[in-house]
Amino acid sequence: MTDAAAVAPGSSDAPVDPKDYAARMERAALSAADAGLAGLIVTPGPDLVWLTGYSPPTTERLTVLLVAPGRRPQLLVPALERPDAERAPGARALAVSGWTDGEDPYALMVKLLEAKGRYGVSDNAWALHLLALQRNRPEVAYGALTEVLPMLRAVKDAYEVERLAAAGAAADATYEQIVGVRFAGRREYEVAADLARLLREHGHSQVDFTIVGSGPNGANPHHDAGERMIEDGDMVVLDFGGLKDGYGSDTTRTVHVGEPTREERTVHDLVREAQQAAFEAVRPGVACQEIDRVARQVIRRAGYGEYFIHRTGHGIGVTTHEPPYLVEGEHLPLVPGMCFSIEPGIYLPGRFGVRIEDIVTCTETGGRRLNNTARELRVVA
Amino acid sequence: MTDAAAVAPGSSDAPVDPKDYAARMERAALSAADAGLAGLIVTPGPDLVWLTGYSPPTTERLTVLLVAPGRRPQLLVPALERPDAERAPGARALAVSGWTDGEDPYALMVKLLEAKGRYGVSDNAWALHLLALQRNRPEVAYGALTEVLPMLRAVKDAYEVERLAAAGAAADATYEQIVGVRFAGRREYEVAADLARLLREHGHSQVDFTIVGSGPNGANPHHDAGERMIEDGDMVVLDFGGLKDGYGSDTTRTVHVGEPTREERTVHDLVREAQQAAFEAVRPGVACQEIDRVARQVIRRAGYGEYFIHRTGHGIGVTTHEPPYLVEGEHLPLVPGMCFSIEPGIYLPGRFGVRIEDIVTCTETGGRRLNNTARELRVVA
Repeated sequence: MTDAAAVAPGSSDAPVDPKDYAARMERAALSAADAGLAGLIVTPGPDLVWLTGYSPPTTERLTVLLVAPGRRPQLLVPALERPDAERAPGARALAVSGWTDGEDPYALMVKLLEAKGRYGVSDNAWALHLLALQRNRPEVAYGALTEVLPMLRAVKDAYEVERLAAAGAAADATYEQIVGVRFAGRREYEVAADLARLLREHGHSQVDFTIVGSGPNGANPHHDAGERMIEDGDMVVLDFGGLKDGYGSDTTRTVHVGEPTREERTVHDLVREAQQAAFEAVRPGVACQEIDRVARQVIRRAGYGEYFIHRTGHGIGVTTHEPPYLVEGEHLPLVPGMCFSIEPGIYLPGRFGVRIEDIVTCTETGGRRLNNTARELRVVA
Repeated sequence: MTDAAAVAPGSSDAPVDPKDYAARMERAALSAADAGLAGLIVTPGPDLVWLTGYSPPTTERLTVLLVAPGRRPQLLVPALERPDAERAPGARALAVSGWTDGEDPYALMVKLLEAKGRYGVSDNAWALHLLALQRNRPEVAYGALTEVLPMLRAVKDAYEVERLAAAGAAADATYEQIVGVRFAGRREYEVAADLARLLREHGHSQVDFTIVGSGPNGANPHHDAGERMIEDGDMVVLDFGGLKDGYGSDTTRTVHVGEPTREERTVHDLVREAQQAAFEAVRPGVACQEIDRVARQVIRRAGYGEYFIHRTGHGIGVTTHEPPYLVEGEHLPLVPGMCFSIEPGIYLPGRFGVRIEDIVTCTETGGRRLNNTARELRVVA
């Protein structure tokens, strides 16, 4: 084909009002100015989807949106993608221009940049593009959006929170059905296929992950789903999500095939307690790292600290994984409208793992869970 | 989930011998030295798949491979992905180390870099990561791999050419079946779904694109497949491909529903002639841009120059879109083992488009087509 077709994260099928895109770009320009930035350099991916509804493939051909205070946002695209760009939901607020194969798009782009300005760049902008901009205008400074404007997409409006709640409800419905399927004697990837099918049946347009970590595989938090045959007596970590109407879902429950041992119950209770404590710590003004600390402290005090080997959570929105990160060292304060996972876990190498995860949104008065299935250890067949 | 699951391009399911990965890394290090580079900084995506067989998700958590002459390649990964990394096909040749959430992976990474060295960076490395490396070690220079080492993956060995030929044969088999389906009265996306199903039936593990551009939609080379009902009298551009056993396919044929007009035949013949001329120009030592010029000249001489609005081709390998690019200004000489598309087209706005595309490999004696279905205008029902 005439261009690569890597799947861009996010999705443009959310029926956001075109006026909302214009408002988002305006707010983004103001936030940039507040942060001392001359503007934002946005490449295909979730930032572009969120700002314009445009979701082109990510390729070596430069597509770039420049958002700067006091001027119309400029979208520069390969000429042959211009018809698509002009049909994007947010296109009316944009000045769209095309460049042709053989032209130097970076020379065109840097003409739009302020000399000695500092710009925020999409985290996932390709090095190929960034290096070419740097070469063309060495006096311009660049910073990754997560670092220079971490709040750009982090605070969701009411519309977005309800989208996330709807995606969460679909994930919950998936969980309620998956606990009814047979686990013992089936392979992990078969249960994973059930999860994917159910997510789609409940309205997901994109399935991002369907982790089924049984027995010792559950002790690897990044295990996907493999050939292992699930057996009676296994703990099974189920972690699944994707996009529904352009917004993400992500939930984890750990189930047990047949009756758990006392130790398995103890570990599961501990993770549940840590998850609950972290949830209760959510309120405006609390630093992200504090939520991580609260979860970690519960687990550490019980002597399992060394087995909680990842941060407590990550933001969610038009992607299933974005700022804010609930991790030691992240001083950003929680703000009403932030949406993120709370997902502590304990991983006993070679034996089993437990993780419990809900998406939570920060409200004026505290946390609100967007996943609502029971967190008690569920026995499956 | 504990990490994003964006689909990494490429695939690790190709049964390349682990020794071959080690050999690729060694050759890459030597090529880097020849190009005056201190080493290569490789992030998740096709470069990493090709060098190591490792295909982790692309996320804000740094995963990076450092290949440098005279030392063991170093793979730095998030601690919780270490078990997966150590199971990668090429892992035996690597020194794998993990970093934990809360640690600064960039500080660890730059310790491995040579002061004042120049490094090649994967084109698709995230700006987030590159900017952090630049901040940590401003005296190190970086260049995009496509620019500083364009030949890294561009020249395929015999094993790779045969993989690409097998993927091409599967795409050809898909085409032979699709011309037997009903076109008139069906929507583009229905034919696209047939193409995807057939590619999978013929062994593709990943479908990257299934363009069905009927009537005026065919005049937009980046049109995907839409709601339009295909009618008798339509030209239909079919452009499809994906990955089979880790290597790419990509072919285009333009078919006609019912009898074409004289003009439609003329335009199709012209594109076919341009494609043939470009194919015949393939031989070692010819510059990439020359292939583009040959195709363009045929079309320009017939008065259609302004309607051939994209470059003539792109490389293919573990992705469906990579260097070398057959475009004006690309002086790289063809080398035996290079594999690329040759895909001229004519696009008449509001009316119809024609494109014909084969994957071609350069041999010692000239071009060899990896797609072999008839290029004459095929009439479908």
